[in-house]
This record gives sequence, structure tokens and C-alpha cells, in this order.
Amino acid sequence: MKILILSADDFEDMELFVPYYRFKEEGFDVDVAAKKRQKIEGKHDYEIEANHAFDDINPEQYDMLFLPGGKAPAKVRKEDAALQIVRHFMDKNKPIVTICHGPQIMISAGVVQGRHMTCWPEVSKELKEAGAVYEDQEVVVDGNIVSSRMPSDLPFFLREVMKKAKVAV
Amino acid sequence: MKILILSADDFEDMELFVPYYRFKEEGFDVDVAAKKRQKIEGKHDYEIEANHAFDDINPEQYDMLFLPGGKAPAKVRKEDAALQIVRHFMDKNKPIVTICHGPQIMISAGVVQGRHMTCWPEVSKELKEAGAVYEDQEVVVDGNIVSSRMPSDLPFFLREVMKKAKVAV
Repeated sequence: MKILILSADDFEDMELFVPYYRFKEEGFDVDVAAKKRQKIEGKHDYEIEANHAFDDINPEQYDMLFLPGGKAPAKVRKEDAALQIVRHFMDKNKPIVTICHGPQIMISAGVVQGRHMTCWPEVSKELKEAGAVYEDQEVVVDGNIVSSRMPSDLPFFLREVMKKAKVAV
Repeated sequence: MKILILSADDFEDMELFVPYYRFKEEGFDVDVAAKKRQKIEGKHDYEIEANHAFDDINPEQYDMLFLPGGKAPAKVRKEDAALQIVRHFMDKNKPIVTICHGPQIMISAGVVQGRHMTCWPEVSKELKEAGAVYEDQEVVVDGNIVSSRMPSDLPFFLREVMKKAKVAV
């Protein structure tokens, strides 16, 4: 199982690191990609090395895509290379798991039409306008998409994410 | 499986929350105790409600004790009620899992003599002086005690903690 995380500075620290450590606990390979290959810093000052740039990613090599939240997705959504990665996962029906503001990236990639999803409350208007069926739940699973709202949803999110990961191996 | 966390203000946020969410993912009951029943805040500004005071805890009700790190253990170790809880777990041979500065609480409880353990590097001198056999490893398991050094050890720590949790249920 090889997992790709797309993020940027000002990620929500728990939303990135709690799944990151969970994947590592399970023995999965995890890569973090950002606009450039560099250290990125969360809203709460935790740092992680983005060991790849979006441009250098071959999405064929990954089994699951994880889009954490915070203010990072507002930056990631502006990057065509990142949106191409999202579209690859949708085209191949591989799992995309996302929380909080992460769905903004999927909105910009144009892949949420008709899909049941949740997100950070303030993103819900935009998600609905893009054609998704918004649900205010701890976690929503619709086919290859798993979505949650906020850090306190992480246990619910990870239960469903781990099910997808174990099927997708 | 019922787990008790002992902490205080200035806990290391990832060290408390990553295991906390992991336990919740697994469906375990988790209580957080502090000197007083109140909200406590981590070094990185995450907050959690301590839903019990040390004085109100009946340790018989818990299967595992978790002592996260940061600057909180320096406060917790001064509280007799907290040290009595630690001694209960040692007397009953129930799992105590700890990371970073957490072992300081076990040192003050007088329970580390002859035990193989690890901790935050700067705590190692004190740990050795208290009679423990210090090992610089991601995770050290010695009977009922599981210990780790720092946030980046969390995946290794949780692998061993989850084994103890599943046996202890």
C-alpha cells in the first residue's frame, strides 16, 4: 500500500499527522508532495518534509490519495499538477480520502458532481454548488471517496480509511 | 478496554492526541485526568477536556494507563494522587504506556528500578539514576511497560501499545 499526501504550508497539523502516523503504524509507504520539494509547516507549527513536488509525481505508483485540511488546500487547488493527480485517482477509481478543507481540491479538479461527501462546515456551500450531495456526518463513504469534517472526526475517518486501504492493497 | 490518560497543561500535542484518536478509532473508552477537572492545553495550543481529577479516579476501573509527554509530566509528578494511580498499575501488572517526558511520572512513583525503558533523550540521565535500564530505541517493551522517545516514534509505539491493549481486554 502506497499513499500520497498533497499539502502545503498551513495544513491542519492533526489532520495531516494523525493519519500519517496511522499509515506508518500499519507499515504503509507514505509520500508527501507539495508545490516544491521542501519542508512544509502546519498552522500549529509542526513540520513535515514534502519529499516530492507535484510535478514529479507519477500517480500510477500510488494506491490511495489523502488530502488533509487547514489552509493548505486553498493553495494546492491552484496547482494544475495537483488537480491532474486528483483526476487520475478518480479515473482509476482508486481511493481518495479527505477531511476539512481538503475537498476544495476535489472541487477545483471538477470531480465531486453527484458524489456524497462531507467537509468543514464553511466549505459546504461551495461543495454543494459544485454538485456534491453534502452530508453533515462524522464520515461519509461514497465509492472511492471517504470524507470527514474536522479533527474530532479523525477516529471515524480512519476506521473507514483503513477499510479502503486494506481492500486496495 | 478502558484507558486512563494522566496529563496537565503544556502536554506534547501529538503525543497525547495521536494515541487518543487511535484508541477512539479502536472503540476503546478513554478518560483524561488532570489535577482538576478542566480543559488542558498543549504546547501547540490544542485543547482537550480533562473529564476527571486525579483525586476522583478509581484505577481499578481502567485496563491501561497512558502517560504522554511534553512539559506536563513535570507537573503531574508532583501530585501524590497521580503517583498512587501509577503504583496501582504496577502492583496489578496492568499496562503502562508512556512517551517522551512521561517516564518522569514513573520515576517519581518509584517504579522503574531494573526496568528496560526509553524516554526523551534529556530524561535519560534521570531515568538511569532511578535504576532503569535505558535503551535508545523507537520503542522498548518490558513486561507491562511500553515506552518511546518522541513524536516520530509514535507509529512504533502504537504498534506495541495496540498489542498490549488487545491482550489486556
